[in-house]
Amino acid sequence: MICRRTFLALSAAAAALLSVGSASDAAASGPDISHFKLQNGMEVVVIPDRRAPVVTHMVWYRVGSADEPPGKSGIAHFLEHLMFKGTEKNPAGRFSKVLAAMGGQENAFTSSDYTGYFQRVTPDRLKMVMEFEADRMTGLTLTDKEVLPERDVVLEEQNSRVANSPAAKLGEEVLAALYLNHPYGRPVIGWRHEIEKLSRQDALDFYKRWYTPNNAILVVAGDVTPEEVKAFAEETYGKIAPRAEIGPRQRPQEPEQRSVRTVTFADPRVTQPSLQRSYLVPSAATAKPGESEALEVLSQILGTGTNSRFHSRLVIGKPMATSIGAWYMGTALDHTRFGIYGTPRADVTLKELEEAMDAVIAEIAENGVTNDELERAKIKLVADVVYAQDSQATMARWYGVALTTGLTVDHLKTWPDRVQKVTSDQVRDAARTWLDKRRSVTGYLVKEHDKPQERRS
Amino acid sequence: MICRRTFLALSAAAAALLSVGSASDAAASGPDISHFKLQNGMEVVVIPDRRAPVVTHMVWYRVGSADEPPGKSGIAHFLEHLMFKGTEKNPAGRFSKVLAAMGGQENAFTSSDYTGYFQRVTPDRLKMVMEFEADRMTGLTLTDKEVLPERDVVLEEQNSRVANSPAAKLGEEVLAALYLNHPYGRPVIGWRHEIEKLSRQDALDFYKRWYTPNNAILVVAGDVTPEEVKAFAEETYGKIAPRAEIGPRQRPQEPEQRSVRTVTFADPRVTQPSLQRSYLVPSAATAKPGESEALEVLSQILGTGTNSRFHSRLVIGKPMATSIGAWYMGTALDHTRFGIYGTPRADVTLKELEEAMDAVIAEIAENGVTNDELERAKIKLVADVVYAQDSQATMARWYGVALTTGLTVDHLKTWPDRVQKVTSDQVRDAARTWLDKRRSVTGYLVKEHDKPQERRS
Repeated sequence: MICRRTFLALSAAAAALLSVGSASDAAASGPDISHFKLQNGMEVVVIPDRRAPVVTHMVWYRVGSADEPPGKSGIAHFLEHLMFKGTEKNPAGRFSKVLAAMGGQENAFTSSDYTGYFQRVTPDRLKMVMEFEADRMTGLTLTDKEVLPERDVVLEEQNSRVANSPAAKLGEEVLAALYLNHPYGRPVIGWRHEIEKLSRQDALDFYKRWYTPNNAILVVAGDVTPEEVKAFAEETYGKIAPRAEIGPRQRPQEPEQRSVRTVTFADPRVTQPSLQRSYLVPSAATAKPGESEALEVLSQILGTGTNSRFHSRLVIGKPMATSIGAWYMGTALDHTRFGIYGTPRADVTLKELEEAMDAVIAEIAENGVTNDELERAKIKLVADVVYAQDSQATMARWYGVALTTGLTVDHLKTWPDRVQKVTSDQVRDAARTWLDKRRSVTGYLVKEHDKPQERRS
Repeated sequence: MICRRTFLALSAAAAALLSVGSASDAAASGPDISHFKLQNGMEVVVIPDRRAPVVTHMVWYRVGSADEPPGKSGIAHFLEHLMFKGTEKNPAGRFSKVLAAMGGQENAFTSSDYTGYFQRVTPDRLKMVMEFEADRMTGLTLTDKEVLPERDVVLEEQNSRVANSPAAKLGEEVLAALYLNHPYGRPVIGWRHEIEKLSRQDALDFYKRWYTPNNAILVVAGDVTPEEVKAFAEETYGKIAPRAEIGPRQRPQEPEQRSVRTVTFADPRVTQPSLQRSYLVPSAATAKPGESEALEVLSQILGTGTNSRFHSRLVIGKPMATSIGAWYMGTALDHTRFGIYGTPRADVTLKELEEAMDAVIAEIAENGVTNDELERAKIKLVADVVYAQDSQATMARWYGVALTTGLTVDHLKTWPDRVQKVTSDQVRDAARTWLDKRRSVTGYLVKEHDKPQERRS
C-alpha cells in the first residue's frame, strides 16, 4: 500500500543546494528559505516553490537505526511501519485513506540517522495533514493484533531485500566488517534474528524516547508562505509538549583502523562475480573544512559517469570491467563511507580488476587530477544541484537530511561555493589520506568459494 | 604491584574437572565439592584440599566486558583496577599491605564474561580476607585523584599489551571482524579512545549495577571445612543486602554467518609472517549435548602437541610450518571461538601454508579421525584435568569460570565422562559443521601490505 523507501541514502551532492555562481550572496541566488523554531523546540523549514498548487510536507525525526539499543536492531524501521497503525483519534488506515481520497501521496523512510514521514497534497489540505501528523507524534496506539502481523511484513521485507539478494547480503557483511564499534555496522532493517523478537513494548519505548517535537523537524516546500506554515504549525505541532529531553546523540565511535579486510560471499545465483569496497571516511559533519567537498569531487572524478578515471581507463582504455564506479555518502552524523565497485569482464578475474582499480586510485593519490577534470566535476556537481531544484520533494529532502545529520541550512546554501574552491591538491590529499586500504573492507561476490579470486571465471 | 591477569581464558579442558574412570559416581571420585547459597543470593563453592595449610579465596562477579554499555568499553577491566583504591573503612592500599605483610598473594582478572578477585593465605587469615573483600563489595570510594592516574595505568597497559604488539593488534581486529553483532567483538581491555574517556562516574555506575552479592560467587579451596566457610561467609558477605536485581545477561546475538572474511595487518616489526583464524562455534553453554566435547577433542587431535594432525603433517611430514596449532575456548556464556594458527617456514608463503592447513581440516571433515587418535586425545584431556587438580588455585578457578559462563558444578564433574563418550563421527561432524570458513575470519600478520599473501617472503 505504501511504498516505503527504507534505505534512503543521499550523496552529499544530492544533499547540497543552491546559489550557483554568485554564491557569495546565497540568500539572493536560491529560494528564500525560512528556518525557525516553535516554542516546544520543533524546528521548521519552509521552502517556497510557487510553480504549481502543491505542497510537500515532511516530518523528520533525529533518530535512526544507529540510535537503537543493543539487541533491538530494526526497531527504528519497525516503528516507522507501526506509525501507520493509528491513534485513538484516527484509527489505523484513516490518514492514508483520507490522503488517497484527495489524490495525495505519502511515504516514509528510515536510515541510520533519521526517520521521516512525507505527504504531498494541495495547499488547502496542508493544515489537515499537519493535524494528522501531529496526532501520531504522541497518540500512537499499538496492540499485538497490529504489531505482530506488521512484524511479519518487515520480516518479509528483510527477506526480499536482503536475505534473497546476494549483493545486498554481501553489502550487509561488508558494513558489519567495516565498523568495528560504531552502530552504523548493523543493517538499518535490523538483523533478522533480532527483528523476530521485536515487541509492541520495544516500539513504544523507542517512540516515547525519540518521537517528541523537540527532536523533530518540519519541512514544508511548495506554494505556501512561511507565515501560513508558521500559523498552521503553531496550531498543530505547537500544542505538543516535549516529552523527553533529547541529549546529544552519542554513538560509540570507531577505533583507529589499521587493517585491510575482505569479505567473500558465495551464492550459486551469482552469474558474474563482482567486488565492492567501502572505506571509512569523514562525513560532511565530521570532516575538516574542505575535506568532505574534496571527497565529493574525488568520487566524481574517480568513478561517476563515462568521463571518470575508472570508466575511461578500465572500460574504454583497457577493457576490463563491464560496470564500475565510485560513490561518497557525505551525509552522516558520524564517520561515513566512500565506496568503489566493479564487475569484471568474463575474461578478467576479480583480482586483476581490483589491482587495476587500485592502480587508478594510486595514480590520483600520487599526482592529483587535471584542471579539466576538476572543472568538469565541479560543473557536474553544481548542475546536479540546480537541476534537482526542479523537484519539490528532493529539495525538501535535502533540508531534512542535512538537519538530521549534523548540518545546517547555511551548510546547504554555501555548498556549491565550497565545492568551487576544491583544488587538485585537496583531491589528491583526499585520495592519499582516506582511500587507504587499511581503512577499508573489500567484498567479493562469487558463485562458489573455491578460491574465486585466484582463478579465471 | 599487583600482577593482574586480565585476559584469563581457559580452554574447556582447563575448565573441566575430576572423576576419572569411575566417573559415574562423580562425587566419590573427585573432591567432595560443597555448593550452596547464602540468604542474600551469593553462591558459595568449597573445594576441600588438605595437603597444606593454605587456602585460596576467590570472589567472582558474573560481569565482564561483554556486559558493558555501548561506548564504555574497558569499564569492567578499569573497575577491576579501581577495586584496589580503598573504601571508607580500608583506605587505598591497606588490604594489599596487610596481605603482603602476612606473606599472602593476591590477583585479579577480567574477561568477557567475568571479573574475579583472588587471595591465597593461611587458613587462620581466611575470615579476615573475607572481611576485606566483603567491605569492597559495597564500600568502594573513588575520587578523581585516584581514578585519573589509574586510567593512565590502564592506557599504558593497553599500550604495552595491544598497541605495541602487532600480533595482539591483529587478534583484536580478527575478533572485531568475527563478531558482527555480539559484544565479544570488542577487546576486554577496551578500545583505546573509549578508555581515554572513562570516568569515576562510569566506574561507580558499573560497580553499583553489577557488584552485588546476588551476582557474586565465593570460591574457597584449601584446608578448611564447608562449615567453617559457611559460618565465615554468613558473618561477612551474608550481611550485605542485594542492591540490584540481576536479570538474565542478554547480549545481542550473532546473525547467521555466511561469508569468508580476512584481516591483514602489516607492521615493519614483523620478521616472519603468520596467520591466525577464528571460527564462530558453540560454547559449552550454548552447544547441543556432546558438541562442545567433540570440539574439545577436535582441537586436541587437529592441533595440540606433536602427535596432532597439524604437527605430524605440516611440521614433520611435509615441513611447511615452524609453529602451528589449534585451540577451543569452550567456556563462554554465548557462542565462542575455535582457533587455528601457523607460521610458515621462510620458503613457504602464508597462502601455501593456509591451503595445506585447510586440506588437513578437510581430511578430518571428510573421514573423521582414527581410534588411536581419539583414545590419545581423551587420555590427554582427562589427564590434564587430573594433573591440574594438583593446583589449588586452578581448581578454584575452574569452578569460578564454570559458574560465571552458564555451567554448573555438575557440568564440571561429569565432563571427563562426557569426553570419554565422544565418537569419531562426532569429531568429523564438528569439523564439518563448525570449521566452515563462512563462519570464520582469517588474520594475516605481515611485514608490509604489498600483496603479501601472493609472494614468497
